[in-house]
Amino acid sequence: MAISNLQKARAAYQPKLPKALQGPVKAVEGAATQSVGNQAEIKELFPNTYGMPVITFEAGEPVELPPFNVGIILSGGQAPGGHNVISGLFDGVKSLNPANKLYGFILGPGGLVDHNYMEITADIMDKYRNTGGFDIIGSGRTKLEEVDQFEKGIQILRELNIKALVIIGGDDSNTNACVLAEYYAAKKYGVQVIGCPKTIDGDLKNEQIETSFGFDTACKTYSELIGNIQRDCNSARKYWHFIKVMGRSASHIALECALQCQPNICLISEEVEAKAMSLDDVVTYIANAVAKRAEEGNNFGTVVIPEGIIEFIPAIKKLIAELNDVLALPEAQSINSGNEQIEFVKRHLSKENLNVFKSLPSDVAAQLALDRDPHGNVQVSLIETEKLLSRMVADKLAIWKHQDKYVGKFGTQHHFFGYEGRCAAPSNYDADYCYSLGYNASRLIANGKTGYMSIIKNTTAPAAEWIAGGVPITMMMNLEKRNGKMKPVIRKALVELDGAPFKYFAAHRDEWAKETAYVYPGPIQYWGPTEVCDQPTKTLLLEKAK
Amino acid sequence: MAISNLQKARAAYQPKLPKALQGPVKAVEGAATQSVGNQAEIKELFPNTYGMPVITFEAGEPVELPPFNVGIILSGGQAPGGHNVISGLFDGVKSLNPANKLYGFILGPGGLVDHNYMEITADIMDKYRNTGGFDIIGSGRTKLEEVDQFEKGIQILRELNIKALVIIGGDDSNTNACVLAEYYAAKKYGVQVIGCPKTIDGDLKNEQIETSFGFDTACKTYSELIGNIQRDCNSARKYWHFIKVMGRSASHIALECALQCQPNICLISEEVEAKAMSLDDVVTYIANAVAKRAEEGNNFGTVVIPEGIIEFIPAIKKLIAELNDVLALPEAQSINSGNEQIEFVKRHLSKENLNVFKSLPSDVAAQLALDRDPHGNVQVSLIETEKLLSRMVADKLAIWKHQDKYVGKFGTQHHFFGYEGRCAAPSNYDADYCYSLGYNASRLIANGKTGYMSIIKNTTAPAAEWIAGGVPITMMMNLEKRNGKMKPVIRKALVELDGAPFKYFAAHRDEWAKETAYVYPGPIQYWGPTEVCDQPTKTLLLEKAK
Repeated sequence: MAISNLQKARAAYQPKLPKALQGPVKAVEGAATQSVGNQAEIKELFPNTYGMPVITFEAGEPVELPPFNVGIILSGGQAPGGHNVISGLFDGVKSLNPANKLYGFILGPGGLVDHNYMEITADIMDKYRNTGGFDIIGSGRTKLEEVDQFEKGIQILRELNIKALVIIGGDDSNTNACVLAEYYAAKKYGVQVIGCPKTIDGDLKNEQIETSFGFDTACKTYSELIGNIQRDCNSARKYWHFIKVMGRSASHIALECALQCQPNICLISEEVEAKAMSLDDVVTYIANAVAKRAEEGNNFGTVVIPEGIIEFIPAIKKLIAELNDVLALPEAQSINSGNEQIEFVKRHLSKENLNVFKSLPSDVAAQLALDRDPHGNVQVSLIETEKLLSRMVADKLAIWKHQDKYVGKFGTQHHFFGYEGRCAAPSNYDADYCYSLGYNASRLIANGKTGYMSIIKNTTAPAAEWIAGGVPITMMMNLEKRNGKMKPVIRKALVELDGAPFKYFAAHRDEWAKETAYVYPGPIQYWGPTEVCDQPTKTLLLEKAK
Repeated sequence: MAISNLQKARAAYQPKLPKALQGPVKAVEGAATQSVGNQAEIKELFPNTYGMPVITFEAGEPVELPPFNVGIILSGGQAPGGHNVISGLFDGVKSLNPANKLYGFILGPGGLVDHNYMEITADIMDKYRNTGGFDIIGSGRTKLEEVDQFEKGIQILRELNIKALVIIGGDDSNTNACVLAEYYAAKKYGVQVIGCPKTIDGDLKNEQIETSFGFDTACKTYSELIGNIQRDCNSARKYWHFIKVMGRSASHIALECALQCQPNICLISEEVEAKAMSLDDVVTYIANAVAKRAEEGNNFGTVVIPEGIIEFIPAIKKLIAELNDVLALPEAQSINSGNEQIEFVKRHLSKENLNVFKSLPSDVAAQLALDRDPHGNVQVSLIETEKLLSRMVADKLAIWKHQDKYVGKFGTQHHFFGYEGRCAAPSNYDADYCYSLGYNASRLIANGKTGYMSIIKNTTAPAAEWIAGGVPITMMMNLEKRNGKMKPVIRKALVELDGAPFKYFAAHRDEWAKETAYVYPGPIQYWGPTEVCDQPTKTLLLEKAK
């Protein structure tokens, strides 16, 4: 297998560990915990895993442990650093007893249910240290929710003599990890379940979790590209670049990229929703900035757009909700032609939503009325928001030009960055953070913990000073409506409009819109000055500085 | 002005120079040269700049020179390293006499004609060392072709006491630089003109020019992204990614990315043309690879596509040529509706071209029949080739599925990389190469040369061993038809199907198509092991190894 020179050189990198994890540990327990909401209900749902203390590891005495095996699952979308969680876990497990084995379940949680697994040996592991991607065992989106799945899981776990299962995933996967931990604890199956906070979207964080892994690397990769585009933009001086970045549920990625690159405009979905902005408000906001720059002869700029923006515009959200209902009507099922379906939709929408529907460019309206996913829902993700917005801005500017309110040229280019960053090789930060998360998980396992998430805190300090430990997953839960039913879930962290990162952005964005204040972060560096190689995200630095 | 930590650290980088340029030089002249074609005609067109010898610089004695000023122009599309050509020229010019001044003409050749310029002082220069982009003075696409422009140019050149003008550009801009050099020489205006080989496309190279600057950095940036996508592809195992990269006239970028990343498929426009492949041939080629991988359960892969592929398919090329004629017919000018225009086109196309037209997906056919540029030509660049191909592959696979010739799933994602790489911060290679090109240009000026291109050779060796000199631009010229007229132009370097890079690719591609042999190059590194930081392109290494 040919590998790149960078892979060869990075394979030799030994990720840093917190001081407490560099030798034998003892678990220091804090006070009993409560869930962040719906405490009575959560306690009732998780009688065996509720209320446990937060754990901090400190230096301790060596303990002899009998050999044990561990299983690992990668769940959901890829994030840089997944392989380092596994290598940290591998090294941690082997350090406890070289006879311990690590099994990987293949292609996600489905591998557990279908008994599809492989042993991760030292030879295999060494090929994946400090690399991006989840390809060592693959990932998948099967949700572990049913008793039947749990029971199928225990069969293979017992067969492989697995003492603990580590699930690497986002908020949903960690919620399910806790449900599984609770189930196995209730059944006294003797298998522990530990979660690890993963998602490039950055929306799995709270008082206990500083950041989800992968966010750092993905944002830096997107920022490299946005910076490059901004250089081009400022050299050619003839295009407005509309740049969409991943992040459907939260705008952390867009915000971090804005903090890194200082684009002329960055939209934040959470703000659009909080201010109840209409699509026209959003378009007007952009068009105003374009017009102001044009007054000074600057017919170029950059607009960073979070993937989920459309669904955060309250009027569109309502429209989509009603469209889902209308398209589910029995009469709608027998319609054969597209035009007929659009007419049907128009007849059945409420007046308010019909007006919103009519305000959309016709092809976007058609897309909303026609394309449905296998569950019959409108496929919002198919809408090329970056093109939709740029076209609507162009239309508005054309009107303004006619009214002598705008003098300028408006040429556009479009970009969407998602897959470009999810599997980048982890930055030094993510390489160390992930390795520590995995290594730390082995200590939670050795200490008999279940229903915990592996956590590493104080990560803006040098790695030696990082704090390792565990947090009961139930502590982060509340009840939320999902598909019409109240379910226990880990509360998603949206961009807080009174949080330090957004406030910094809001304090500077008018200046960035007017001036050309672009910053060019460049590619992630692994060697070289520490200011270049070892910085956490601006989001995290601002959050910690408050 | 906020700058990134990487910019701060890179500002301190001192690019390497060939040994010969590290002190005073003497110019060693080779034999008289001939143009690569049409020698009699080129000689007649360039009586003052034809036949000059190739120059090589060697260590020489210091020479006292009176102070002189130099002008610089960035022409055409951005390429990483432009600022380093300027900083090399700046340092070179100042080293000859600190009183020498460097003037930049703003926004390209138009700045010379419109007398739009600025002095590049040490303070300004220091802000741009080792950075990407052309934003120090901007670039533009005005072509210097008319006597009127040359005369306007000489006014400002005289006013600023400029002894020599350096033009950084691609093949066309360097051709025009030579026309200007010839004109000023014929008129005895006493202003020298020197060219520098720039283009990310890599199609300005020949026996004398090893590579155009920017190709290295741009290809490495695209390869970083393609590698990241391949990791994702190999982790999720559910999509075929169709990745288009810049390169309309030549496929060097696609080929270099393929050599770096080993995608399942890479199309090479020059091969498609040489084999006279039809669009259906191309689609069938891809579909076959998809079907073969599906047989082994691998419903994922990557396809790298050069931007210009469509225009290299002979049948499409013919269709476009006839479409341009048909749409230029007087009767076509009064058509108001799209449908009418499509019908008009269908009535007027020859039978052969009509069949090709009908074979295209209807929206692509409509795009070809409707969208025209300001010169009335079909806008081929608007066609999203990556989507066109993936859709046609999907259609073909659907038919094969029906015929039990294909069993699998075909999900797709699309990407286009262009602006993402044109203004990346230059790699060490491009930083050194460009600085040397610029520094070397100052020596050509000091030696009184005009109509030369600055060249640096032997660049696969350490920088100290690089060979610096100059090549008469006429040596690279021949006559080619442009807009119906024979014109002297620098011969464009297409991918040679019997060249070492293509042959290496062709020898491995079947294996790459079948296996998942992805290589993940990762981001450009500036510090760290030399195997990681200082490698030239695979294209250049293979060309030199032959």
